[in-house]
Amino acid sequence: MNDALSPQALRHAIRTGAHSGNTSGLAAGFVQCNIVILPADRANDFLRFCQLNPRPCPLIATANSPGDPTLPPLGDVDIRTDVPSYRVFRDGEFVEEVGDIMRLWRDDLVTFALGCSFSFEEALLADGLEVRNVTEGVNVPMYRTDIDCQPAGAFAGKMVVSMRPFAAAHAIRAIQICTRFPAVHGAPVHLGDPSLIGISDLAKPDYGDVVTVGPNELPLFWACGVTPQVALEAAKPPFAITHSPGCMLVSDLRNSQLAVM
Amino acid sequence: MNDALSPQALRHAIRTGAHSGNTSGLAAGFVQCNIVILPADRANDFLRFCQLNPRPCPLIATANSPGDPTLPPLGDVDIRTDVPSYRVFRDGEFVEEVGDIMRLWRDDLVTFALGCSFSFEEALLADGLEVRNVTEGVNVPMYRTDIDCQPAGAFAGKMVVSMRPFAAAHAIRAIQICTRFPAVHGAPVHLGDPSLIGISDLAKPDYGDVVTVGPNELPLFWACGVTPQVALEAAKPPFAITHSPGCMLVSDLRNSQLAVM
Repeated sequence: MNDALSPQALRHAIRTGAHSGNTSGLAAGFVQCNIVILPADRANDFLRFCQLNPRPCPLIATANSPGDPTLPPLGDVDIRTDVPSYRVFRDGEFVEEVGDIMRLWRDDLVTFALGCSFSFEEALLADGLEVRNVTEGVNVPMYRTDIDCQPAGAFAGKMVVSMRPFAAAHAIRAIQICTRFPAVHGAPVHLGDPSLIGISDLAKPDYGDVVTVGPNELPLFWACGVTPQVALEAAKPPFAITHSPGCMLVSDLRNSQLAVM
Repeated sequence: MNDALSPQALRHAIRTGAHSGNTSGLAAGFVQCNIVILPADRANDFLRFCQLNPRPCPLIATANSPGDPTLPPLGDVDIRTDVPSYRVFRDGEFVEEVGDIMRLWRDDLVTFALGCSFSFEEALLADGLEVRNVTEGVNVPMYRTDIDCQPAGAFAGKMVVSMRPFAAAHAIRAIQICTRFPAVHGAPVHLGDPSLIGISDLAKPDYGDVVTVGPNELPLFWACGVTPQVALEAAKPPFAITHSPGCMLVSDLRNSQLAVM
């Protein structure tokens, strides 16, 4: 795919099946979202979970009403077709991966779109910082921590974080840059000694890939969008749908529009 | 002295000799300044030094013209009497400490007022963070680093930094808060391993006092207003006057007015 494709053209390619994979680096400059879809009777608890845990679960948009597959704040979106790949869960268990959810759609389903680290990575790169997982062409390493999320109904669990290493001066700059973007996880939640947040070995991420950490670098840890998926597994709702990892909803919002200053 | 004294009342007490010591904690909420006074033929190089090194030398105000002892942007100031204690240097050597500089004043002297860490410490405390040197009632520890300042004429030297320890989450918050205050040194210049900026032993500060650093804390290092004094010693101007350490010029500016956002 062409990096510079508009979000509208990219969503059209996804909707028609012309693109079905990872969206990383596509429609550069535009916000991509984590997606969680739940029955209305679980939606309010999940909404509260997001409100109580805004750093791992920064809510960017929700559907106007149950059964409505559009997300007007994000563009001309049909959530049933516009994500390249979906994961379907029943009773908290992953059951299948599908290319669209037309046949699974129900009039009680509520869609949640959450911010994603792609937006702040773009801001870091634009400032001249090196983002190690980008340099090394791998998925960012992610770790389960011992930091408790605030529970809401059955939604609960530990915070998952992503890690990117920086030299100290760049770590300070990265904190400044990400502070401008609370809608995409914001500033890191921790830096330095991983054991202080319950991570025993940086070389063994729970999700994603290992990246190199230089001897004069500090690991910086950001609240991660995998956190709501872990909460979903804990809550075991009878039915749920998410995007497949890396296969995000591409919106018409520009990353720069999420900057609070 | 009364903490809540207005800056005008405090300057009057200083001017009349009723107060001659440290200004730390006095006229709470108002900007206090480091002072450097130089002959006009050295002033331009020092001005350039400040412009090239804004983090250690954040210029808040300068005199309108050589020989003018007022600093209108800072209030009804007479720089010859309104600092509790002055240090006089000849050829870069400290020669005496005096309570006013009426008899030393010359029509070629130019005054520079630079931001000071008291302002950002107040912002950190107001956010509920603990500032260790305040808690322990000592001067902040300061260290000469191996970071070169950008030279300007004869003004040159290594950056001096002050150190305050924080747990990681508070370190991130401190960076966010101080980023709002570039006029008072701004965000830290380093955090973590002191040896990476040429500091061999935190327990042996070059200026100020030792503070406790907890086992789960990171040292944060801010560019420090002692840096221009080191540059002054290097430049060896025939004549110079500074404030005595801790005995600052108290201005009518509120700390909050220095916030860039």
